[in-house]
Amino acid sequence: MSELTIWTLDWVPQGPRGFVRDLRLRWACEEAGIPYAIRTVAFEDRATNHLPDQPYGQVPFLKDGSVEIFESGACLLHLAGKSDKLMPRDSVEAAETLQWTVSALNSVEMVTVPWWFLNITGATENGLTDWMTGRLGHIERVLGEREWLAAGRFTVADLLMADVLRIPLVRAFGERPATEAYVARVTDRPAFKKARADQLEHFEASDRAKAAAGS
Amino acid sequence: MSELTIWTLDWVPQGPRGFVRDLRLRWACEEAGIPYAIRTVAFEDRATNHLPDQPYGQVPFLKDGSVEIFESGACLLHLAGKSDKLMPRDSVEAAETLQWTVSALNSVEMVTVPWWFLNITGATENGLTDWMTGRLGHIERVLGEREWLAAGRFTVADLLMADVLRIPLVRAFGERPATEAYVARVTDRPAFKKARADQLEHFEASDRAKAAAGS
Repeated sequence: MSELTIWTLDWVPQGPRGFVRDLRLRWACEEAGIPYAIRTVAFEDRATNHLPDQPYGQVPFLKDGSVEIFESGACLLHLAGKSDKLMPRDSVEAAETLQWTVSALNSVEMVTVPWWFLNITGATENGLTDWMTGRLGHIERVLGEREWLAAGRFTVADLLMADVLRIPLVRAFGERPATEAYVARVTDRPAFKKARADQLEHFEASDRAKAAAGS
Repeated sequence: MSELTIWTLDWVPQGPRGFVRDLRLRWACEEAGIPYAIRTVAFEDRATNHLPDQPYGQVPFLKDGSVEIFESGACLLHLAGKSDKLMPRDSVEAAETLQWTVSALNSVEMVTVPWWFLNITGATENGLTDWMTGRLGHIERVLGEREWLAAGRFTVADLLMADVLRIPLVRAFGERPATEAYVARVTDRPAFKKARADQLEHFEASDRAKAAAGS
């Protein structure tokens, strides 16, 4: 049995399916050929049922032998330490990969998630829109000049950046052809497709189990 | 001459002094005993004058031999690779340090910076306030149970988390005694005080040079 376990929720509503962040870890494992098992915490009382494993009551978290780690970005960097398919071993290329991984987390997602959150809670025009425009404009310029963010080839930085940029409201934000081509290119990878299909099936299996139980 | 160079701005207005993020890298180098030089890009045309080094026109960025890296969080993880004073070498403790470093970037700062940005641009009550309350409440609970975030001792995760939490508007957000004690404890470290004093002096020297030039 695999020692590496990705923890996610047992069930979620339709909306977030295909976007729950265990997908990032499934995808990385698929890219790297790392076997993994999936285990779950209950959606029902998720705010409090796994705080010792994830202090905000979120998923995913990862167990890899004696290592336990939360934050999808940290889990990805941990997995990147296990496979040069995710991060090159050359120090210059590793630094490039690290910087763009953190950039997806702290320069792009730091704007897109709060903007998206304000947007779906009613403020379609909000105080973060100019920041969003500027930040995504910089990314569009960068992606107009290169196929992959780091090291001239697919890395975990692309996995994360594409996952940040593929959120429907973000993807639909303005005309950004280089970004759209990038998101299409990265999410066309077999490892992404398998990870997404597996996550969808995981939640559909949960639906079927609930229906069979008559709940 | 030191090969490690931290790049920042040549000058900033009073407001951000003591908070420009080159401070994070100065602080880490001081903790680890890594010698470094400071070099600058011009504040005046910062939006465009160093885009090849930092794609959003921000600072800091770091040059370490042939490695060039931006994003303060990525620079900190790069520096952590050079000194176990910043990140333990034990795999379990290293994972703890990594997860809390990313948590500061992607779970805490992802809320505090947009909230703070909306706040100073006029929306003191805004749609991120409940999220801010929840996220900082989780951190308060965690910090009520431990002195340091990872590995039972100071790590780069504390450096970053304290730097995120010490922003005045964030620090003043509600009564959070464990967080306040933590921020006071971490920022009482000599390496922080030296880094902050050096940054303030850097910008004051720039003021003096401008005054002497009659500009």
